[in-house]
Amino acid sequence: MDDEARGGRLQERVVEVQRLLEKHRMLEVVASRQDTPKSALLEQMQHRQNLAELQRRLRGLHPADLAHLLESLPIDDRLVVWRELTPALAGPVLVEVTREVRESLIEQTEPSTLAAALRELDADDLRYLAESLPDELVDEVSALLDAHDRSWVEQSRAFPPDSAARLMTQDLLSLDDSWPAAEATAVIKRRGQLPSHTDRLFVVDARKVLVGSVSLGALLIAPGEAPLAAIMDTDIRRFHPYDDAAVVATAFERYDLLSAPIVDDRGKLIGRVTADAVMDFIRASSTNDVLSLAGLRKAEDLFAPVWDSATNRWPWLAVNLATAFVASRIIGAFESTIQHLVALAALMPIVASIGGNTGNQTVALIVRGLALDQIRPGASAVHLLRKELIVSLLNGLLWGTLVGLFAGIVYGSAPLALVMSAAILLNLVVAALVGVFVPLGLERLGRDPAQGSSVILTFVTDGMGFFLFLGLAHLFLVRT
Amino acid sequence: MDDEARGGRLQERVVEVQRLLEKHRMLEVVASRQDTPKSALLEQMQHRQNLAELQRRLRGLHPADLAHLLESLPIDDRLVVWRELTPALAGPVLVEVTREVRESLIEQTEPSTLAAALRELDADDLRYLAESLPDELVDEVSALLDAHDRSWVEQSRAFPPDSAARLMTQDLLSLDDSWPAAEATAVIKRRGQLPSHTDRLFVVDARKVLVGSVSLGALLIAPGEAPLAAIMDTDIRRFHPYDDAAVVATAFERYDLLSAPIVDDRGKLIGRVTADAVMDFIRASSTNDVLSLAGLRKAEDLFAPVWDSATNRWPWLAVNLATAFVASRIIGAFESTIQHLVALAALMPIVASIGGNTGNQTVALIVRGLALDQIRPGASAVHLLRKELIVSLLNGLLWGTLVGLFAGIVYGSAPLALVMSAAILLNLVVAALVGVFVPLGLERLGRDPAQGSSVILTFVTDGMGFFLFLGLAHLFLVRT
Repeated sequence: MDDEARGGRLQERVVEVQRLLEKHRMLEVVASRQDTPKSALLEQMQHRQNLAELQRRLRGLHPADLAHLLESLPIDDRLVVWRELTPALAGPVLVEVTREVRESLIEQTEPSTLAAALRELDADDLRYLAESLPDELVDEVSALLDAHDRSWVEQSRAFPPDSAARLMTQDLLSLDDSWPAAEATAVIKRRGQLPSHTDRLFVVDARKVLVGSVSLGALLIAPGEAPLAAIMDTDIRRFHPYDDAAVVATAFERYDLLSAPIVDDRGKLIGRVTADAVMDFIRASSTNDVLSLAGLRKAEDLFAPVWDSATNRWPWLAVNLATAFVASRIIGAFESTIQHLVALAALMPIVASIGGNTGNQTVALIVRGLALDQIRPGASAVHLLRKELIVSLLNGLLWGTLVGLFAGIVYGSAPLALVMSAAILLNLVVAALVGVFVPLGLERLGRDPAQGSSVILTFVTDGMGFFLFLGLAHLFLVRT
Repeated sequence: MDDEARGGRLQERVVEVQRLLEKHRMLEVVASRQDTPKSALLEQMQHRQNLAELQRRLRGLHPADLAHLLESLPIDDRLVVWRELTPALAGPVLVEVTREVRESLIEQTEPSTLAAALRELDADDLRYLAESLPDELVDEVSALLDAHDRSWVEQSRAFPPDSAARLMTQDLLSLDDSWPAAEATAVIKRRGQLPSHTDRLFVVDARKVLVGSVSLGALLIAPGEAPLAAIMDTDIRRFHPYDDAAVVATAFERYDLLSAPIVDDRGKLIGRVTADAVMDFIRASSTNDVLSLAGLRKAEDLFAPVWDSATNRWPWLAVNLATAFVASRIIGAFESTIQHLVALAALMPIVASIGGNTGNQTVALIVRGLALDQIRPGASAVHLLRKELIVSLLNGLLWGTLVGLFAGIVYGSAPLALVMSAAILLNLVVAALVGVFVPLGLERLGRDPAQGSSVILTFVTDGMGFFLFLGLAHLFLVRT
């Protein structure tokens, strides 16, 4: 199948689904207005036909495409599509959608329907979904698994949300280091198929302790009599289930891994992480930084119900507002100064604004540097601070002079120009200090540096901007 | 090798390198103060010993770890380490470092030294570096490649920066669809090794047109006499070199791919993309959104020289400042109103600030939605707009009332409270409109929605915030 054709076909199918959804909406409206029983029956028939057609179309889509379709549909349409999915599709789709959409779907679904969908999943998928599901439901569904899988689901629920365990799959085949290559190949042949996303197999000793790995290529190439211990790679990156998922992701990126083993405290092989799970993790954690910096508490479904969206945005708005009150009181303290020279009121937001902008540039760089693990405590932090201070001095001199000139020309006052320039210079220095120290400080406190940095920074640059400008004006312009 | 031990050892080695760098700096200082020739000689010897020790330590590190070390070192130390690298290490390190650090290293290195390092690289790596390198140097080094590799480097330089071609490697082994499995295995054995990151091999017909793929696992399991055409997977996602790299990344994420083929216009196999390149791309493009939203023109080396950093930040600061001037003139137009009621000066930044904050939350959600390809033109954009408007009305009523109460109590004026509440409500509606339309508009114009959205938004919410508040105050409070 050619990919352009596929891409085209996918697009066509999605458009077709959307057409059916529109018809569905129209029929619902008509049905609600129905008065004569006869036409009601007719409409009902049409309605059913339409849904049957929709169901047929949906079955032709890959679960990942369905997941993506659900993510980009408004809530009502999303639920129509979701309810038309057979359990065999609904299960995998639930695994594929983003967490926030998953939670909205779970909330809207009967436990019995949900259970039917979950029964279609293997232990790994169930474990992955467990944190979004009601405990009883997980217990109910995992009771149907065999003992090994059940205990796997049980165990994994104990690991923290951002641990390597959450990226792990138990679906693996391990080889015995005493086997020759031919024996390993025979075992694989008997098994009939390899776990998905297998580029290499892990080799364990008699105690199940991980001792190496063999790429499938090496196994294909090796002479049949070569012992695995001789052809295996012993220099492998391994992780523990309670390792930070971010550490695993960094290792995958840095050492170009496609898969890596997870071992327990005694070095025994218990699972495997593959690059596809890591890609999803990298995307999710990076896009969450964008949201955190903008003051959103958690990732938000684009089409979330209004109330959910609003409450997700409130905590940081409340903090923001509290800081804006403080800034307002700072200005309030200088009311007599402003009364004296009302031009100050027009100019003061410029000082605050340029402070906030330069500071946020610094915050973004530091947050990114922390995400890429490029900032070491000590030496490099000091160096960063020095550099940002010099950049802020340079910016302060340049933009301070420019803004001062503007103010001087508009209001025809050289002293006003000087006060403006000085206030900007000082506020940019403050912005650099805060921009470096706040994210580093949050990180050191074990908090997400993206969450809150920007708010604290804006608070300081607004407050200090007003204070520096009005204070200097009070000292040098008004008291004459 | 146990990973904790390895992690510990890596950490130790890095610390050791840093110790040697400190000693190096100290010796440099001492050398510059030197007066007696005898002690100068002694210092020089120490200096050389120190560098030799450093070089020895560096050789023990993986190129990816060295790259990471360079990224997290201040510029001076970075150059000391860089210069101690042998060409055999310097080449791979150059491939591993981030683009901005790579460019700083290339700038600081003699062409002849650079050429020595580049000669250690294969055609794929050279091609990857080509866009950061002077053309003459690429020509010089690629002249040493064989004809096939040389034309590969040539061709790939023609592809645009963010195309699939930039993620592609030519290092692949293709199988002939007429072969039985045993023949394929024999070919692989004769070749002696498979290209790195191979989870599956691509199958071509007699005209070299891609017809399917065989996972290594399937090849291991298949009976020797089974024809490849029978065991291969024909339903594969394939890409063209001029496809958007973001499209390739999305497909890898969505369909959990570890590798995918690149074909030319006639369907002939020309290369391969592997998940390790895609992981790096996802990380880079996501972290760049963080920087763009904060108003940085391009990714900036944390330890870039001051001048480079400053100029990278100027374009958006200049735009910001221009908009702040406009906002300032809006306030200026109401100077007589403020003169009349100076409390307005203290309260107006609150209106602007809450507008900016709610608007930026919307911008962040839309930018993320666009990055995840969740927003379809038409239906879902309308729905998003409606939802954001309702959220903004809700927020406006809540926070408007709250802030109004605050203003009413502080200044003891009910009319002032009402004006404040109304201005906030209206400004939040403006923020929602701008927050939705600006990123969508930039995207439709084929521009990066993250770049500039935030600046335009703040401009509107500041300007409108001041205008609405002071205008309403002028109408209802001052004219009495």
